Amino acid sequence: MKKTNIKAHATIVVIGNEILSGRTQDINVSFLSKWLNNLGVRVTEVRIIEDRESSIVKTINELKNKFKYIFTTGGIGPTHDDITSKSIAKAFKLKYGFHEEAYKILEKYYKSSEFSEGRKKMAKTPAGASLIYNPSSGAPGFIVENVFCLPGVPSILKSMTDGLKDKIVGGKKILSKTISVHTVESEIAKSLEKVQKQFKNVEIGSYPFFRLGKIGVSIVIRSTKKKQIDYCYKQIVNFLKKKEVHIIER
Amino acid sequence: MKKTNIKAHATIVVIGNEILSGRTQDINVSFLSKWLNNLGVRVTEVRIIEDRESSIVKTINELKNKFKYIFTTGGIGPTHDDITSKSIAKAFKLKYGFHEEAYKILEKYYKSSEFSEGRKKMAKTPAGASLIYNPSSGAPGFIVENVFCLPGVPSILKSMTDGLKDKIVGGKKILSKTISVHTVESEIAKSLEKVQKQFKNVEIGSYPFFRLGKIGVSIVIRSTKKKQIDYCYKQIVNFLKKKEVHIIER
Repeated sequence: MKKTNIKAHATIVVIGNEILSGRTQDINVSFLSKWLNNLGVRVTEVRIIEDRESSIVKTINELKNKFKYIFTTGGIGPTHDDITSKSIAKAFKLKYGFHEEAYKILEKYYKSSEFSEGRKKMAKTPAGASLIYNPSSGAPGFIVENVFCLPGVPSILKSMTDGLKDKIVGGKKILSKTISVHTVESEIAKSLEKVQKQFKNVEIGSYPFFRLGKIGVSIVIRSTKKKQIDYCYKQIVNFLKKKEVHIIER
Repeated sequence: MKKTNIKAHATIVVIGNEILSGRTQDINVSFLSKWLNNLGVRVTEVRIIEDRESSIVKTINELKNKFKYIFTTGGIGPTHDDITSKSIAKAFKLKYGFHEEAYKILEKYYKSSEFSEGRKKMAKTPAGASLIYNPSSGAPGFIVENVFCLPGVPSILKSMTDGLKDKIVGGKKILSKTISVHTVESEIAKSLEKVQKQFKNVEIGSYPFFRLGKIGVSIVIRSTKKKQIDYCYKQIVNFLKKKEVHIIER
C-alpha cells in the first residue's frame, strides 16, 4: 500500500479481557473507524490489550507520541476490573481522583440512595481531564491530552461520539469507491496491480467474498483525491469490461 | 487483573486496511482466541495493522520474541495488496520464493490453463517455511519459526485450524464459569472486588448487557484451576443470594 497524504492518524486501544478471550465480539473498532474516517481521521493501528494496569500504561506510553489521536474503549465502569482511568493517570503521571463536574453529573443522575461507591468511582479521572458527556447513561468519558477514553458498551459509546466531533481536527476526508464483480481474485490480480502502480495516492484493495452462493471480489479504491479515484475507477472498469468480468455493482 | 500462571501466550496480528477502515468486521480474532483457549493458549494482545510492508516487518520483529505464538491473518492471497508472505520473509531475513510443495499443491488444484501468475504467487513463501494445509481452497498458509500465517477469509481460516492442533503446545486449559444476573454493575461492584481480592489465580470479569429489554451483568470467572473457580463461584452466588439479586443463569 502506498502512503497517502493524511496527517491525522489515530489508533484505537481496546481494553478488555472479554475481547481477548473471544467471549465478546468487538464492534467498536469498525464503528469508530468509520466515524473517524468521516472526520478525515485515518485509523492506522488498533491494539486489543488486557485490562491489566501494566499493559495499559505501557501501551499508552508507546502510542501517545506516535498518533494524533488515541481512542480507548472499555474499562471505565464501576467494577474492580475497570482500571482504565487509574491507568491513564499513571501513564501521564497525573493524580487520580474525583472530577468535580463528573461527580456533580452523577450525583444528579442517581438518587442519593443509589449513588453507591461503585458509581462514585465513575466520577474519578486523571487530574485535569476534560469530560466526554454521556447522553445515554450518565457516567462520562474523559480526555487527557490526545487520549480519548470511551466505554466498552457499543450503544453508550455511540451515543457519546456526537458530542466529540468538535474536538477532532481531521485532515482531508478519505473517499472511496467500490466495484463488486463476479470473478476470482487471481483473474484480475495482474491488471489491478498495473493500475495500482500508476496511482501513488490511491489505495486499491481487493477483497474476496462469498454471497448468495457465488464467489466475487470487491475492489475498493480509497484516496483523499476525488479525481484520482475517478481516473483509477475508469481504468479498472475498462479492464473488467475487456475481460468480460460481470460487474455486480459499481 | 491478576497474572494467571500460564506460559503459552499468543498474539494475533490482523493484517488488513479493510478492517482498519471499518469496511469489514473482523471475526477471526474471536474465533482464534476461543480455539487457542481450548488448546491452553491465552491470547494476551491483538494488533490490527495496515497491509504495508514496513508495518508488518516492524510489528513481527517487535512481537516475535515476546510471545510463544504469533498468528497473522490476511494478506496471503493472489493480489498486489497481499504482501504478508514477502514481509514475513523480510522480518526474518529469509529469501522469498516458490515453495516446492506449495507449488505442487496449487498445480494439482488448478487446471494448467487456470494456474495464473496471481495463483502462482500464492505458492511463494519465506525460504524454509512449513506449510499449513488448506482443505477448502488449495492455497496453503505457512509457518516460520513461531509465526503462523493464515488467510483473512474466515471460512477458509477455520478450515485450516484443524490441521494445526498438533503444532501448538499449550499450557493448562483456561476454564471459565459464567453467572448472569439481573442487576446493575455498581450494585455488585464492592462484593465482587472483595471476592477478587481473595483469589489471586482467578480473574473475575464483570460485563454489563442489555437483553430482551432488561439490564443485566455477566460475571465471568476464569482460571486454570478448577477448584479455585468453584470456591470463587460459591462465594459469588452466596453474596448474590444475600443481596436478593435475580440469577438468570449459572
